[in-house]
Amino acid sequence: DFLAALEEVHPAFGVSEEELEQVIQNGIIHHDPSVDELLRSGHLFVEQVRTSSRTPLVGVLLHGPAGAGKTALGACIAQKSEFPFIKLISPDTMVGYGENQKVTAITKIFSDSYKSPLSVIVVDNLERLLDYTPIGPRFSNAVLQALLVLCARRPPKGHRLLVLATTSDRPLLNDLGLTGIFDSHLYVPPISRLSSLDYVLQEVELFRSDEERRAALAKLRQAGFSEEDTSSRMHVGIKKLLSTIEMARQEPDNVVDRLTGALMGIGM
Amino acid sequence: DFLAALEEVHPAFGVSEEELEQVIQNGIIHHDPSVDELLRSGHLFVEQVRTSSRTPLVGVLLHGPAGAGKTALGACIAQKSEFPFIKLISPDTMVGYGENQKVTAITKIFSDSYKSPLSVIVVDNLERLLDYTPIGPRFSNAVLQALLVLCARRPPKGHRLLVLATTSDRPLLNDLGLTGIFDSHLYVPPISRLSSLDYVLQEVELFRSDEERRAALAKLRQAGFSEEDTSSRMHVGIKKLLSTIEMARQEPDNVVDRLTGALMGIGM
Amino acid sequence: DFLAALEEVHPAFGVSEEELEQVIQNGIIHHDPSVDELLRSGHLFVEQVRTSSRTPLVGVLLHGPAGAGKTALGACIAQKSEFPFIKLISPDTMVGYGENQKVTAITKIFSDSYKSPLSVIVVDNLERLLDYTPIGPRFSNAVLQALLVLCARRPPKGHRLLVLATTSDRPLLNDLGLTGIFDSHLYVPPISRLSSLDYVLQEVELFRSDEERRAALAKLRQAGFSEEDTSSRMHVGIKKLLSTIEMARQEPDNVVDRLTGALMGIGM
Amino acid sequence: DFLAALEEVHPAFGVSEEELEQVIQNGIIHHDPSVDELLRSGHLFVEQVRTSSRTPLVGVLLHGPAGAGKTALGACIAQKSEFPFIKLISPDTMVGYGENQKVTAITKIFSDSYKSPLSVIVVDNLERLLDYTPIGPRFSNAVLQALLVLCARRPPKGHRLLVLATTSDRPLLNDLGLTGIFDSHLYVPPISRLSSLDYVLQEVELFRSDEERRAALAKLRQAGFSEEDTSSRMHVGIKKLLSTIEMARQEPDNVVDRLTGALMGIGM
Amino acid sequence: DFLAALEEVHPAFGVSEEELEQVIQNGIIHHDPSVDELLRSGHLFVEQVRTSSRTPLVGVLLHGPAGAGKTALGACIAQKSEFPFIKLISPDTMVGYGENQKVTAITKIFSDSYKSPLSVIVVDNLERLLDYTPIGPRFSNAVLQALLVLCARRPPKGHRLLVLATTSDRPLLNDLGLTGIFDSHLYVPPISRLSSLDYVLQEVELFRSDEERRAALAKLRQAGFSEEDTSSRMHVGIKKLLSTIEMARQEPDNVVDRLTGALMGIGM
Amino acid sequence: DFLAALEEVHPAFGVSEEELEQVIQNGIIHHDPSVDELLRSGHLFVEQVRTSSRTPLVGVLLHGPAGAGKTALGACIAQKSEFPFIKLISPDTMVGYGENQKVTAITKIFSDSYKSPLSVIVVDNLERLLDYTPIGPRFSNAVLQALLVLCARRPPKGHRLLVLATTSDRPLLNDLGLTGIFDSHLYVPPISRLSSLDYVLQEVELFRSDEERRAALAKLRQAGFSEEDTSSRMHVGIKKLLSTIEMARQEPDNVVDRLTGALMGIGM
Ligand SMILES: Nc1ncnc2c1ncn2[C@@H]1O[C@H](COP(=O)(O)OP(=O)(O)OP(=O)(O)O)[C@@H](O)[C@H]1O
Ligand SMILES: Nc1ncnc2c1ncn2[C@@H]1O[C@H](COP(=O)(O)OP(=O)(O)OP(=O)(O)O)[C@@H](O)[C@H]1O
Ligand SMILES: Nc1ncnc2c1ncn2[C@@H]1O[C@H](COP(=O)(O)OP(=O)(O)OP(=O)(O)O)[C@@H](O)[C@H]1O
Ligand SMILES: Nc1ncnc2c1ncn2[C@@H]1O[C@H](COP(=O)(O)OP(=O)(O)OP(=O)(O)O)[C@@H](O)[C@H]1O
Ligand SMILES: Nc1ncnc2c1ncn2[C@@H]1O[C@H](COP(=O)(O)OP(=O)(O)OP(=O)(O)O)[C@@H](O)[C@H]1O
Ligand SMILES: Nc1ncnc2c1ncn2[C@@H]1O[C@H](COP(=O)(O)OP(=O)(O)OP(=O)(O)O)[C@@H](O)[C@H]1O
Ligand SMILES: [Mg+2]
Ligand SMILES: [Mg+2]
Ligand SMILES: [Mg+2]
Ligand SMILES: [Mg+2]
Ligand SMILES: [Mg+2]
Ligand SMILES: [Mg+2]
Repeated sequence: DFLAALEEVHPAFGVSEEELEQVIQNGIIHHDPSVDELLRSGHLFVEQVRTSSRTPLVGVLLHGPAGAGKTALGACIAQKSEFPFIKLISPDTMVGYGENQKVTAITKIFSDSYKSPLSVIVVDNLERLLDYTPIGPRFSNAVLQALLVLCARRPPKGHRLLVLATTSDRPLLNDLGLTGIFDSHLYVPPISRLSSLDYVLQEVELFRSDEERRAALAKLRQAGFSEEDTSSRMHVGIKKLLSTIEMARQEPDNVVDRLTGALMGIGM
Repeated sequence: DFLAALEEVHPAFGVSEEELEQVIQNGIIHHDPSVDELLRSGHLFVEQVRTSSRTPLVGVLLHGPAGAGKTALGACIAQKSEFPFIKLISPDTMVGYGENQKVTAITKIFSDSYKSPLSVIVVDNLERLLDYTPIGPRFSNAVLQALLVLCARRPPKGHRLLVLATTSDRPLLNDLGLTGIFDSHLYVPPISRLSSLDYVLQEVELFRSDEERRAALAKLRQAGFSEEDTSSRMHVGIKKLLSTIEMARQEPDNVVDRLTGALMGIGM
Repeated sequence: DFLAALEEVHPAFGVSEEELEQVIQNGIIHHDPSVDELLRSGHLFVEQVRTSSRTPLVGVLLHGPAGAGKTALGACIAQKSEFPFIKLISPDTMVGYGENQKVTAITKIFSDSYKSPLSVIVVDNLERLLDYTPIGPRFSNAVLQALLVLCARRPPKGHRLLVLATTSDRPLLNDLGLTGIFDSHLYVPPISRLSSLDYVLQEVELFRSDEERRAALAKLRQAGFSEEDTSSRMHVGIKKLLSTIEMARQEPDNVVDRLTGALMGIGM
Repeated sequence: DFLAALEEVHPAFGVSEEELEQVIQNGIIHHDPSVDELLRSGHLFVEQVRTSSRTPLVGVLLHGPAGAGKTALGACIAQKSEFPFIKLISPDTMVGYGENQKVTAITKIFSDSYKSPLSVIVVDNLERLLDYTPIGPRFSNAVLQALLVLCARRPPKGHRLLVLATTSDRPLLNDLGLTGIFDSHLYVPPISRLSSLDYVLQEVELFRSDEERRAALAKLRQAGFSEEDTSSRMHVGIKKLLSTIEMARQEPDNVVDRLTGALMGIGM
Repeated sequence: DFLAALEEVHPAFGVSEEELEQVIQNGIIHHDPSVDELLRSGHLFVEQVRTSSRTPLVGVLLHGPAGAGKTALGACIAQKSEFPFIKLISPDTMVGYGENQKVTAITKIFSDSYKSPLSVIVVDNLERLLDYTPIGPRFSNAVLQALLVLCARRPPKGHRLLVLATTSDRPLLNDLGLTGIFDSHLYVPPISRLSSLDYVLQEVELFRSDEERRAALAKLRQAGFSEEDTSSRMHVGIKKLLSTIEMARQEPDNVVDRLTGALMGIGM
Repeated sequence: DFLAALEEVHPAFGVSEEELEQVIQNGIIHHDPSVDELLRSGHLFVEQVRTSSRTPLVGVLLHGPAGAGKTALGACIAQKSEFPFIKLISPDTMVGYGENQKVTAITKIFSDSYKSPLSVIVVDNLERLLDYTPIGPRFSNAVLQALLVLCARRPPKGHRLLVLATTSDRPLLNDLGLTGIFDSHLYVPPISRLSSLDYVLQEVELFRSDEERRAALAKLRQAGFSEEDTSSRMHVGIKKLLSTIEMARQEPDNVVDRLTGALMGIGM
């Protein structure tokens, strides 16, 4: 069942649960071994923060293509930590904020975290928090400078903090000097193999029968999508894939063609 | 009758009808099969929002040359949804707004939509909402950042939203990162075939008789406009065409020449 | 008599007559057939607005070199319409305005026009309204965005509007996206033929006798100014020509030489 | 006597005399025929304004190298007009003004002038009024736009205005669109001939005797300064020349050498 | 014991001790002779300030790669001076400050120092104090100008000041004109030799036995890390090294591989 | 004795003596004939202002490399004038000033000077007053425009003013148009000959005996520093030299080597 991953997440007290659940609304589908590896790495960082006194601050950057599942995975790792302080810093809650308002809101969450012995903060979608646009380029230097300090500053004695940040544009962050401040970088890959696609299709029950599903996959194989991701033409984030599947559902008589077409378009 | 399309649109309660009607003042003329295909695609997205619980947010971008009819088609699809919440976000109502006022006005409409179980928002003329000008280039980054979040943010649980956005400058939106947030892109073509032109001329009754109209078309054929749109010199939005026709009406004795000249000028 | 054109303009009630007369202080001299053609085209647009219900908004751009008479012709066409609402939007009345004040003033005039069944607005000297300067370049994007919407937005139902805009820099407007919003472009040419010059000289009675005038023209012909405007070295706006003539009047004994010299300078 | 030119200037009532005298403190030395020609041209423009009803506004631009005497000549022409309204608009009185204050101050003087039947305004040192600097470049667009309108706008009916503007950087003004608005351009040349220098040296009585002066000139001739200004190495504004002479006066025993050296430095 | 260096630092009265201790939380490990040399140079500057009356101001710039230990060394030198006034100016305490607030805060600390006969100020992380980002580039010119004056201005008579500044981007400071104002530049090197690494590993007791440690080093030697730093692939700041070690501690069974991998990654 | 120059400066009443003394704290060492020539040139300008009525304003620019002694020399010339009004305009007293505050402060000092019959203003460190930084470049155009007018504007009748400005970046000032407004430019050279160095070493008594000093110079000669400044590798401002000497004093046993090394570093 594709809600399994979500269900094994146990709520922690004093934590903004609703926000976290909102971003993993469709659960975590274990379509590929990389999914489990990412969750395990996240677990190790959680344990490092819990146990090592020499590294009261650990910063991890989750990066990968748009819609790969970075936010959902970050939220999932955070939830599983069961730390008493878990917060999501997200551009979704800051629409229309001026840069000073943003800096204040972000700084407040870090300050609050310093009151808890163990905290995890998910800093979601760094480029959007920065109000970044490639034309200019333009971005809020005030937010950038605040993040540069906050994500690298140690919490006060006796307090420990895990920072999980996400981005779809690591080269940009590198240019802005924002990559060096993280202790570790985790890559969240897109779906690029038929076997992963098959797994997802099963989970979301797009087809009425296994035959139908296998027939669809055969057509995709013919259309040039390979089992292995070497020189794969498939390169689609789990988020886009789930939305494409819903669209295909609209024309029950025509599902295979729609899906094929959409995947090819996305995979181009 | 060229008001047919408009007439089949039934008013929905709680909807800003007047605004919508203003932008489809001249109705929808079915001059080409593409017009029906666009309306049908729009219908499918409306149904996806109505039925799929996994995609509470669907975003569609209507793009095409100036005056191709993007706004009218977007408004038409919205009206036909008969959703309880239908709103038009248009630069026409924001003349002289500072960027913060714009962000506030846009954000308010999205927030209002979250109160309705089913909503459709037409975000018209993105480049104008952004106060974009190619010299500089200049645009409001505040509006851009708000749109980037608002058009991609899921409505709260139990609420569903269709966003229909229009633009004449898709490459610009791509550079600004505004294309990726839409699930689907629909192309609204210009008129590029004599048969479409003929259909429009009939509908608007520019000529007093069929002979006059056929004579005019013959002249246009001689002037190099072809029936098929391959290497066509005709490339005119329905909006410009309708205005050109009114201008030609001013000199009844001279209609053919005026029209020919104007079409050639526009078609260059 | 060179005040003829002005005199046939009949005052319309509710109209800012004084402003309009100020800009056609020296009347309209019919030195070339193009002058009458421009006035006739203007008349046709006035009639289109008066009669066609499908085009409640018509926009016309008068463009041509500095001092060619664009403002005077625009004002003249507006006056002749005898519409109940006739207004001039001119940078002359906005010295020292901030961009918001400008936007407010311009928007107010458009809003006022929506109360009259038939209106004409002369939007004079677009580049100056925009506070444009080629170094930078700099201009008011706020004014630009307001004009882009106001000059393209239809008046409310039952109201009709003719917009007559002037510019000496159409390429600039094109770069700014301001040309496409006008339905038609009218070119106001400079004086480039000796016959036009002769006509003007007669009208303003610079010379005491016809002989003197003919002698002067002979000298200009020798100096390389031709009757026809192909490869003409003469290229002077009517405004500059009238001012040059007044300067030449200062030295009665020396009029021919001064005029020759000045025209050559200007014609370079 | 080198104060002659100044002395023949008769005070006019209602005029800011002190300011004008301050800028021609050292009088006008008639070292070259061009000086008289400039004053005579100025006189003709004054008369055109006084007599022609078709050109209620005349604009003249005095341009030339730094220190050539533009301000003094402009002020002198203004004073000689004996118009009831004579004002100097100078950056000297606007130190530390913000751009809005500048625009207000400049606009006020033009408005005041509209109350007098005959006025002359000296707009001194345009590039400084614009707060121009070549690095960037930076300048006040607000002041530029105000000047573009004010220097080209006709005074109200029954009023006449002469605008005398000065600049050391006509190419800049051209780039800014500020040259086209003036009806005429007058060039104020630097001193480039030994005969002019000789005239000045006599006037200011730098040398105790004619022999000494002639000996000095002979040395300058040897040093490569020619009588005629073709390929001259001498190129010095009257303002710099007068200041150099005062410096040379400090070492009476060494005047010739100091002067030679300084002139060579300046003439390089 | 690796806390030795820290312990020999004796507290001075009137000094912000806590701040200083926070930045040398992990002590100073004497892994290389350069560490002692740096501390000795620092001592000499302290003595120069204490004794020479001709140089009441001495400025020293500590520069080197990210995480090399610049801040800890600067704080250590400052603490050892035992001057009555010792302060740290750090971006960590200025998150969200506007540039004027920063200038005020920085200026205040310098003003306060002028009241003590002997003072030392650590100006930490100049590029962050400047809100610098390479894209643009952007930085606070107000802070830059304040630092340019404050770090070069002599304290009032009878007062002496040592300024210890740190940076990871000396080329930038050079471009900004900030290097020339320091009397001396001290380079803080990264760890680039196996022997230094060995020293650190011993100090922090990552391995349970000497054999384990030696085995690990052997593997690193095989992986291409050399004893000498000529063409070394190892280039890691002490700060990153300590954090990497803590991460490796998480998987006791797998320490060697994790460490090897991490060091290679960092050393690339 | 190296305080000689300072001592012969006699205090003048109404003068900000303390400020002036602060900047020549270490006196004027006559290590080179150029020092006396500079002081004598300064004296001549002082006399020109005192005596010539045709040049009530004289402007002098002292330029040369960093630390060459420009400020000390400017202050020294000012003090020796014994004018009743002597003021220093220095960035040191304007830390954290906004550009308007700077303009106000600078303008005030010029206005005050107009009340004294004879005044001298030292405008120190123009590039710092302008808040200049080469990256961008950025600078305060408001301060620049104020300086452009203030340093060129004549004091009111009956008042005379000497402006002494200093800069380390004359090419910049040239680009900004700030060089042309000064009547004369004086170059303050660095120390580039061993004989000058020798003179300074004697004055400051770095060595315990003449032998020691001669031995040191011999070593420097061997290290490639020549007696004459053609192709000299020595190029050090007096300010840096004095600070280097104090640093060398810290290790009495090692003075020669330290000095050699430092000089070579500086001389590179
Ligand atoms: N294995 C998985 N990993 C991550 N998300 C998954 C997985 N399986 C299913 N999902 C679902 O896919 C969606 C991933 O969307 P998410 O917003 O996390 O992607 P993203 O990479 O953050 O996107 P964006 O680039 O737009 O920020 C979520 O709804 C999540 O519930
Ligand atoms: N098939 C059609 N599709 C769209 N509009 C049509 C059609 N037939 C007639 N129209 C009329 O043509 C006009 C199209 O104008 P509309 O403003 O929608 O174009 P647009 O592409 O949005 O223009 P712009 O690029 O200026 O925003 C409307 O008045 C509409 O009533
Ligand atoms: N045939 C004509 N057309 C236009 N103006 C004429 C004509 N004959 C005479 N005039 C006079 O010439 C002048 C034209 O000036 P106008 O300001 O209209 O030119 P313009 O092109 O708008 O100048 P600018 O480029 O400076 O805006 C007016 O004074 C007008 O009365
Ligand atoms: N023939 C002359 N023409 C102009 N000025 C003269 C002449 N003879 C003497 N002078 C004196 O020379 C000085 C000229 O200075 P002025 O300020 O007018 O020059 P400018 O060209 O305006 O300088 P800037 O380029 O700095 O604005 C005045 O003091 C004036 O009295
Ligand atoms: N020899 C050493 N020199 C400096 N720091 C050391 C040394 N040995 C151990 N440390 C510890 O290493 C850490 C060095 O971190 P520090 O913040 O000083 O580096 P940095 O170069 O300032 O980093 P950044 O470039 O991020 O500013 C401190 O925790 C310090 O206690
Ligand atoms: N001959 C000299 N000329 C100038 N200064 C001297 C001389 N001899 C000794 N000094 C001393 O050298 C120092 C020169 O420093 P000063 O600040 O004047 O140099 P500067 O060129 O203005 O430096 P900066 O480029 O930093 O502004 C002063 O302390 C002064 O007392
Ligand atoms: Mg995300
Ligand atoms: Mg539209
Ligand atoms: Mg005009
Ligand atoms: Mg001048
Ligand atoms: Mg540091
Ligand atoms: Mg100095």
